[in-house]
Amino acid sequence: MTSGIIVERPETDTRARIMATAERFFREIGYQKTTVADIAKALKMSPANVYRFFDSKKAINEAVAERLMGEVEAAIEEILGRRASAVDKLRAFITTMHMMNAERYTGDLKLHEMVEVAMTESWDVIHRHLERVLAALHHIIVEGVEAGEFHVADPHRAAFCVKTSLMRFFHPQLIVQCAREPGPSLDEMTAFVLRALGHKG
Amino acid sequence: MTSGIIVERPETDTRARIMATAERFFREIGYQKTTVADIAKALKMSPANVYRFFDSKKAINEAVAERLMGEVEAAIEEILGRRASAVDKLRAFITTMHMMNAERYTGDLKLHEMVEVAMTESWDVIHRHLERVLAALHHIIVEGVEAGEFHVADPHRAAFCVKTSLMRFFHPQLIVQCAREPGPSLDEMTAFVLRALGHKG
Repeated sequence: MTSGIIVERPETDTRARIMATAERFFREIGYQKTTVADIAKALKMSPANVYRFFDSKKAINEAVAERLMGEVEAAIEEILGRRASAVDKLRAFITTMHMMNAERYTGDLKLHEMVEVAMTESWDVIHRHLERVLAALHHIIVEGVEAGEFHVADPHRAAFCVKTSLMRFFHPQLIVQCAREPGPSLDEMTAFVLRALGHKG
Repeated sequence: MTSGIIVERPETDTRARIMATAERFFREIGYQKTTVADIAKALKMSPANVYRFFDSKKAINEAVAERLMGEVEAAIEEILGRRASAVDKLRAFITTMHMMNAERYTGDLKLHEMVEVAMTESWDVIHRHLERVLAALHHIIVEGVEAGEFHVADPHRAAFCVKTSLMRFFHPQLIVQCAREPGPSLDEMTAFVLRALGHKG
């Protein structure tokens, strides 16, 4: 088995290099304009070699999207593990989700194009991410109910409501669309949500 | 002045007929595929005559969008005038906003295309509508605070939070995008929002 790992490493490296190069192109010239030939050329390899690792540009996009969303999930995981109150964890969760999505997908409008495509063509990948986000929210709410910080009858439904009410701050397309519109601040929305969870702030 | 009104009537009729025909085309073949020439032909008039009433297809779209949003505003106005508690008015407001937007823009996916264009090209028209919606919400919340039904420090900020938290049920694009996704029901979100407003349900 050891030899298997040794053989595998260069493959993994190539895969990672293709993803990194693709991500750079998506940021610099946009998803639509990037071709598999561009990516291959930048890596000094043949398009056929890229296709050994990814079936299609769509598959590269999915891998890049999964990597980016994986970073958000790792940040959330870290918050869940903290020794902190559920209220503080929820605040950190909301801020992290907003800041990470805002930084990645809106500061860089070309990367936003990649998100649009993923939302249309690779909904399953996004869907798995949204399920993990929901599970993390559920976890925090259950902790808060057990600690007497929150008062809700059904933490699962409550998690759905919290996620839905913060869509404007989490959803990349809405962050862009609402950026220059009047509306509540993230702090105001967080306080609103905490009240809805029965927190006496 | 009377003669002015008499002369004006046929003009108003023509304007209304152009709008009605345009709306029918937008619903049947979509906004993008509809041309001013199509609209003129259906009305047995020259395109030049259509341009006497509307500068551009964009101007026709704005007029149609304003008419459709005006119907929502009229329905909300009726709710505000009811002899009812603020809680009941808020419930009726939320249901009406959701049902009217869902019926118009999602049942009829081709009309949804018109909304997309309006959101990009005629943001001012949409903006005025959103301001009226927000003002109505503010009105209901102030009534609720005065009646002791709601407990919020700043009704204006609370109105923003209510509107933002219900975006998934009000925003035509999100109604479409979230239609088949798991999430809270409208009743669950309404209960969540009422709690955030300090209502003891």
